[in-house]
Amino acid sequence: MALIVQKYGGTSVGSPERIQNVAKRVARWHGQGHQVVVVVSAMSGETNRLIALAKQLQDQPDPRELDVVISTGEQVTIGLLAMALKEVGLKARSYTGSQVRIVTDSAFTKARILKIDEQLLRADLDEGTVVVVAGFQGVDESGNITTLGRGGSDTTGVALAAALKADECQIYTDVDGVYTTDPRIVPEARRLSSITFEEMLELASLGSKVLQTRSVEFAGKYKVRLRVLSSFEDEGEGTLITFEEDRKMEQAIISGIAFSRDEAKITILGVPDRPGIAYQILGPVGDANVDVDMIVQNVGHDGLTDFSFTVHRNDYQKTLKTLEPVIKHIQARGIVSGDKIAKVSVVGVGMRSHAGIASTAFRTLAEEGINIEMISTSEIKISIVIDEKYTELAVRVLHKAFHLEQPV
Amino acid sequence: MALIVQKYGGTSVGSPERIQNVAKRVARWHGQGHQVVVVVSAMSGETNRLIALAKQLQDQPDPRELDVVISTGEQVTIGLLAMALKEVGLKARSYTGSQVRIVTDSAFTKARILKIDEQLLRADLDEGTVVVVAGFQGVDESGNITTLGRGGSDTTGVALAAALKADECQIYTDVDGVYTTDPRIVPEARRLSSITFEEMLELASLGSKVLQTRSVEFAGKYKVRLRVLSSFEDEGEGTLITFEEDRKMEQAIISGIAFSRDEAKITILGVPDRPGIAYQILGPVGDANVDVDMIVQNVGHDGLTDFSFTVHRNDYQKTLKTLEPVIKHIQARGIVSGDKIAKVSVVGVGMRSHAGIASTAFRTLAEEGINIEMISTSEIKISIVIDEKYTELAVRVLHKAFHLEQPV
Repeated sequence: MALIVQKYGGTSVGSPERIQNVAKRVARWHGQGHQVVVVVSAMSGETNRLIALAKQLQDQPDPRELDVVISTGEQVTIGLLAMALKEVGLKARSYTGSQVRIVTDSAFTKARILKIDEQLLRADLDEGTVVVVAGFQGVDESGNITTLGRGGSDTTGVALAAALKADECQIYTDVDGVYTTDPRIVPEARRLSSITFEEMLELASLGSKVLQTRSVEFAGKYKVRLRVLSSFEDEGEGTLITFEEDRKMEQAIISGIAFSRDEAKITILGVPDRPGIAYQILGPVGDANVDVDMIVQNVGHDGLTDFSFTVHRNDYQKTLKTLEPVIKHIQARGIVSGDKIAKVSVVGVGMRSHAGIASTAFRTLAEEGINIEMISTSEIKISIVIDEKYTELAVRVLHKAFHLEQPV
Repeated sequence: MALIVQKYGGTSVGSPERIQNVAKRVARWHGQGHQVVVVVSAMSGETNRLIALAKQLQDQPDPRELDVVISTGEQVTIGLLAMALKEVGLKARSYTGSQVRIVTDSAFTKARILKIDEQLLRADLDEGTVVVVAGFQGVDESGNITTLGRGGSDTTGVALAAALKADECQIYTDVDGVYTTDPRIVPEARRLSSITFEEMLELASLGSKVLQTRSVEFAGKYKVRLRVLSSFEDEGEGTLITFEEDRKMEQAIISGIAFSRDEAKITILGVPDRPGIAYQILGPVGDANVDVDMIVQNVGHDGLTDFSFTVHRNDYQKTLKTLEPVIKHIQARGIVSGDKIAKVSVVGVGMRSHAGIASTAFRTLAEEGINIEMISTSEIKISIVIDEKYTELAVRVLHKAFHLEQPV
């Protein structure tokens, strides 16, 4: 007998029929003798509907009140799923984040989980009840309703699995696992039977939107066994997220090619090359609540250098505006920027110990005449900024160059 | 400075624009120096939408889970109204029933309020914050979400007014007060500037759906000053609900004519006229969770009598089925029943001390050839069951017979 936490996203619970399908799947696991905790998102479209309602009342909805409104989406789903589970003959009980006591900080709309009281759930599980928990939401120490930000239901699932010391946390989604890249772009893309947390983190943050980044970090921190599965197929092992130490030696050097079209790049030209200058530029950007992704600064000459970084495309105009006084202040020569870029990344734990990955990537792009605008590397990835129009081509040729269509 | 509790129903908060109008009205009261607590219902249609969703998963939705689902309707409204209040420059804060701690029993879908912790709200009010509370919902001692049944938002409003010792509880609705009867049937119907609690109770339970019965009982018990007003008009005093001892001597004998087409009548013929027989009949009906309204038993002869009662039309078939074995068991002669009836009631505190009201009513109906099928009387009303097709005619002629179109 195992304790399984299953998380179903908005698409998987998008209609009464789909909720019934989830109930049947839970019943199968329960019937095999497992204890099951189910975490659910709002029915697809519901959170957006609620946000749109809120925006009709305030352009920038008050964060505390927005959380009161949008947390209702998951609350509806837990009640409906508990009904569906009862209808197939199981004992079931729903809990909001507040009822479990998923305690978070008070950062409304992007709260972080501080602790989880798991006693109530444990008591239910021990008497054979299926526990249904609202994802995405919690409660702060003062009793205010909080939400964890987009994709927060994954985090709820992983956090519950950690608190309950579950044997596995299964993330059901509309794909049947993690692929070497997006199969819509590369039909030969292959499902990975396993992937390390670090690779997953890179793939998630780079646009393979299977799992929310924070949930993967959480799983890594608390050593939660995490598996991504399809909620629309009854068969399939999905993709297991592993710790690096468990990784088999024969696994591939490169796990996948990720890409993102969500970014914009900004280069400040002729920046005085002196200590503190990066902070003078990025400090105001951070103060404006803009997250910076890639940062590139090359060796300067004549006391001047160029300083480049990328931000989310939604923050592009805001960032440019924020930088206007900065450029004057630091007496930079000017600014060039663009939001018609894409970031393509080659990801793989194996690249740490293998030279030549970068040069293969650069050569492959060069052979197709794709100009590289920025490069940034970490231990397990190489990210390359290119003209947006080459996105699909770059992903296809890189996928082929690293033979990702072939099983290991 | 007064402390005012205002309750707005589903129609009054049925769209973002209407929520903005509520915010403006609240701002006016707040601007006059009053402390304001606002209780809101779900946006119109929302509760029905949620119930329909639930019924797609269970024909008889599990009551605990149904409350989890439908309580989200009010939760959305409180968040939206708090945003609208902030948008017009007020301090505002929303509370679910659970957050206030409106503690109820555990009778899901029809819970009763046991107590209200008013400290949080009081602290907010004292610092000038408008408090927005979700109507219709509470929490039981174990932390389960409960709802109070249809119209329960009125009860929430009155209960909060009682707990906070508010100066007035204002119920905003889509009518501008309580009328002598339905103006759609009798254009001469007149708004009453005041009415006693007892009359209001009768008018509410008889189909003048201005206020939920339980809320009026609650207001009577805790001496809450209650006023019904229109949320669509800025002027108007509405109708004040008074205690009988405050009632002015010159007030009318009859306050209004109520009617209901929601009932069905059942007569069991040839019932043995012995002690305990009424219980043998109505016991199983009650066990089937059917509420009985009028009960009539006449003097028997030859050891037999006829026993009649009315139930809600929705419970009609269920009641007939419940009675099948009962009739055999008590060896009654048979059953006659019908759901094409209407109940018309003449209501007025004044009739206690005035003979002749009943005879005026009976004569008026007789003059129009309307047959009386059942009669039931209390101290402040006479209810008459007639053929449904005569409803409007009966209401019109009774309204005229008691000169209700004329101001007192």
